Amino acid sequence: MSNTSCRSFLHYVFDYETPRTLLIPHVGVGLVFRLSQLLVVLYVVGYVCVVQKAYQDTDSVISSVTTKVKGFAFTNTSDTEPRFWDVADYVIPSQGENSFFVLTNMVVTPRQTQSRCSELPNPSTSCVDDCDCVEGLSDPRGNGVQTGLCENYSTTVRTCEVVSWCPLELDTKLPEAALLAAAENFTVLIKNSITYPKFDVHRRNILPRINSSYLKTCTFNRSTDPHCPIFRLRDIVSEAGEEFQEMAVKGGVLGIIIDWSCDLDWWAGKCFPKYSFRRLDSKHPVNNVALGYNFRFAKYYKSPDGEESRTLIKAYGIRFDVIVFGIAGKFGIVPTIVNLGAALSFLSLVPVVSDWFMLTCLRKRNTYSKQKVTYLSEDDS
Amino acid sequence: MSNTSCRSFLHYVFDYETPRTLLIPHVGVGLVFRLSQLLVVLYVVGYVCVVQKAYQDTDSVISSVTTKVKGFAFTNTSDTEPRFWDVADYVIPSQGENSFFVLTNMVVTPRQTQSRCSELPNPSTSCVDDCDCVEGLSDPRGNGVQTGLCENYSTTVRTCEVVSWCPLELDTKLPEAALLAAAENFTVLIKNSITYPKFDVHRRNILPRINSSYLKTCTFNRSTDPHCPIFRLRDIVSEAGEEFQEMAVKGGVLGIIIDWSCDLDWWAGKCFPKYSFRRLDSKHPVNNVALGYNFRFAKYYKSPDGEESRTLIKAYGIRFDVIVFGIAGKFGIVPTIVNLGAALSFLSLVPVVSDWFMLTCLRKRNTYSKQKVTYLSEDDS
Amino acid sequence: MSNTSCRSFLHYVFDYETPRTLLIPHVGVGLVFRLSQLLVVLYVVGYVCVVQKAYQDTDSVISSVTTKVKGFAFTNTSDTEPRFWDVADYVIPSQGENSFFVLTNMVVTPRQTQSRCSELPNPSTSCVDDCDCVEGLSDPRGNGVQTGLCENYSTTVRTCEVVSWCPLELDTKLPEAALLAAAENFTVLIKNSITYPKFDVHRRNILPRINSSYLKTCTFNRSTDPHCPIFRLRDIVSEAGEEFQEMAVKGGVLGIIIDWSCDLDWWAGKCFPKYSFRRLDSKHPVNNVALGYNFRFAKYYKSPDGEESRTLIKAYGIRFDVIVFGIAGKFGIVPTIVNLGAALSFLSLVPVVSDWFMLTCLRKRNTYSKQKVTYLSEDDS
Repeated sequence: MSNTSCRSFLHYVFDYETPRTLLIPHVGVGLVFRLSQLLVVLYVVGYVCVVQKAYQDTDSVISSVTTKVKGFAFTNTSDTEPRFWDVADYVIPSQGENSFFVLTNMVVTPRQTQSRCSELPNPSTSCVDDCDCVEGLSDPRGNGVQTGLCENYSTTVRTCEVVSWCPLELDTKLPEAALLAAAENFTVLIKNSITYPKFDVHRRNILPRINSSYLKTCTFNRSTDPHCPIFRLRDIVSEAGEEFQEMAVKGGVLGIIIDWSCDLDWWAGKCFPKYSFRRLDSKHPVNNVALGYNFRFAKYYKSPDGEESRTLIKAYGIRFDVIVFGIAGKFGIVPTIVNLGAALSFLSLVPVVSDWFMLTCLRKRNTYSKQKVTYLSEDDS
Repeated sequence: MSNTSCRSFLHYVFDYETPRTLLIPHVGVGLVFRLSQLLVVLYVVGYVCVVQKAYQDTDSVISSVTTKVKGFAFTNTSDTEPRFWDVADYVIPSQGENSFFVLTNMVVTPRQTQSRCSELPNPSTSCVDDCDCVEGLSDPRGNGVQTGLCENYSTTVRTCEVVSWCPLELDTKLPEAALLAAAENFTVLIKNSITYPKFDVHRRNILPRINSSYLKTCTFNRSTDPHCPIFRLRDIVSEAGEEFQEMAVKGGVLGIIIDWSCDLDWWAGKCFPKYSFRRLDSKHPVNNVALGYNFRFAKYYKSPDGEESRTLIKAYGIRFDVIVFGIAGKFGIVPTIVNLGAALSFLSLVPVVSDWFMLTCLRKRNTYSKQKVTYLSEDDS
Repeated sequence: MSNTSCRSFLHYVFDYETPRTLLIPHVGVGLVFRLSQLLVVLYVVGYVCVVQKAYQDTDSVISSVTTKVKGFAFTNTSDTEPRFWDVADYVIPSQGENSFFVLTNMVVTPRQTQSRCSELPNPSTSCVDDCDCVEGLSDPRGNGVQTGLCENYSTTVRTCEVVSWCPLELDTKLPEAALLAAAENFTVLIKNSITYPKFDVHRRNILPRINSSYLKTCTFNRSTDPHCPIFRLRDIVSEAGEEFQEMAVKGGVLGIIIDWSCDLDWWAGKCFPKYSFRRLDSKHPVNNVALGYNFRFAKYYKSPDGEESRTLIKAYGIRFDVIVFGIAGKFGIVPTIVNLGAALSFLSLVPVVSDWFMLTCLRKRNTYSKQKVTYLSEDDS
């Protein structure tokens, strides 16, 4: 018996069971069958492989950016004293990382010291006498801690006195034309080094075929110099659909977007950066607080007798954010198999469609049906 | 013959070969068959499509962040002289990028100059006479380069003299209560602009339906104002499960996490930022060096005779990291096809299960088997 | 009739249609069949599951980095006056974010004021008399706005006078050996906290089993201390295949790359950071402008009479970019189903292969063919 069961097991494993089939020499159904197969194969080859590149493994980019702004300007407006500006003055932070700010306009409040002065006049700070001011009150809309006194702000207006950095900043004094209008001619050199860790691919935005002398003279231009890494600030802004002089007054945030989408297969081998530019902050005043882009910083000084003073600068300008993104694709065995497998599944649908066509639409459908399907009645033994 | 081979080729291509089947009118096996099919379809529709949204193409978010802190404070503790603080004083860096630091406590060492002074006393720096000190030695645990002299640090202790910025910083003098305790009431406005490049979708965290007047008064609150982009610092810290005043003493790192997970299909159309908050540094002193968060910076001054001095500040405070992440999904033909294909494969398993059930569990299994399988003996010709 | 159609519908739904098959007890074709099946299963289990882990859902890392540099140095070269350097002097920005700069060399131009001086001599600025200089001209290669005067630069050379921060910077004076050569012994503590939001997994690069006393003394070493988060700058540079003293002269950008690739399944449970180091800027002068890494910043001073002066520093040094990346994988039902489904599709190819083998290569192929395929002639009725 052990012998028998062993044999039956061997039979089970090594006997080959194949479906019995019916061959129908009908061109109609044959055409339907082959056309359906063709459609599935075309879809797989044409759309999934060629258009969507679904046979590729993908990886996200890792990036490091260095920026260096160049240019100087001399300003001589009625509001401010004449001044010469170079990189150390108008680029903040100075380190040249992937986000840099170019100062274009400002409100300067020099010689501020820790002292007492009258609040800027507005409904909540104006007073008639000391009773209107509360000692120690810190009104969030105000500029300091009230001392409880009511002082003359001007000959006609009296406001509560505060402890603060005095004199207070008058940020309504913002020049209507950008102070550093000349900034539109400044240039920035962007060095970008990327890695696709999964594929161990390293690239730089300064392409190997670019030489030193070209780099010394070129300026980015979408049509003539699409791979020059030196950008004129005005060009960046206008490519983003904005007007530099308009944007320079109140500031804004501008994205320099570098798209490193790469097809790393050897038969493609294209892996170049594509630059695009977009304004990132909203310029519509509809639902926007603090329109534009500005921040306050101070330079601190000490007098010989040790008293600290500062120059407060409310800096308006354009922040340039270098944003690098990209997906690299390369032939991978797993996505290929998965996509081929899914396509094969659809091939297995083809006979279902053909059978339905054969048993429904053809004239001799009853013949075919009789030959194809054996009806087993319940009474058969 | 050419005619014959051509005809046989045509036959091969256009003859349709379909399996011969056996129809079994048994409700049991029919039920098993249909139920298995139903299960597979339910799984595909219910789980893969509805729950996991596997029919969607995905893309990762690209983000740009602007932050602006508001608030001022007046400090008047026994340790330090009275001082008024505004944004330019306590926010570092002042540019309002995606990571900003709010100073809450500090150790100030004013009037440091390049000179010589006695080391801070500790076992490796104390000395009896000059022989204990080595000229030119730079002890990594010390604060300067030894001159080889042994000087009085106090009336009782003698330590090696060093060349350094003197006087040395005594960072054990850290106030036990945060100096800028009032920082908990400061607010920060976070503007976040995102892009899903694959779908060309741009969004801002200031939603279109929010108007200016709401933005001027609102403060983020998870239940009442979940889309207000203005956050009170204390709320951020307490949402992260921490106590502001405790964290303010030694500093820390707090993540403001903005989740932009979006379903971009038109029938979903939900794409709002979700805010969450989490402490990112370890607050447990078990395996932690340099608990909390602090850094040193200096303000440099020059006396009229050209001598440089500096005020060294060891700044403790909370660094807020705005971390933006998100995956957007949108109906895509390739993932849909792949997932449908995989599901179809499982449908092809269904007959295998039904056959097994039929040939194993049913009473009339031998009849079925005899009708279904034709046994071809080796001797057949 | 309604009864009949109902019955025929029930028949349609619950009758089970199974293919009639032919069992062939031939070991050859049985072996081919089973071997093909085995190959497909082996591929799925072995390659897709074990090697590629295609059954896993994936998520990208979210990261926050804190860095803290330690070390001091004393410089005393012929070019500059003796000076003591600590963290507040040479680390810029001082905040300890994921990118920090260590100053190693510099060109200092002290006591610059807004004034007039002669241009640095070069072909485009040299002049004979005032006619060679154009008032108001801003030559981008120059250093200021020309006043129209021709002045003595030295006893032998005359150049156009410019309005600028004077005296002008002479950046050819860069020391040939790095000023802060001692920076190679500075150390940096990197704290990195990561999150995989989809799996709600939080990790730190300071592993739980590391204790405080170890952290106080350890230094990263690939073979002996691979998880110590304290790095000696020289080690970082040499692991990247560079020479610290050489790189320190002109500066450069160095990536500290932390790979958090994790397998989060409980049977794997390995999730440690792996550190690697790579120079990110090009050191080859072939197609490179502005070799190395430097930037200009200024310290501003005010004299007692209110006149502003500055010390301009062209800082050369190494920027360290901490780059965190990683993909976490965890068993997911959807990718498992999709991959299994695709594999099943290939199993459906196996009978096709076996049939082809049987009907082409075997001796009794005609017998098999006759038994398997029923030829339906067009004339059959």
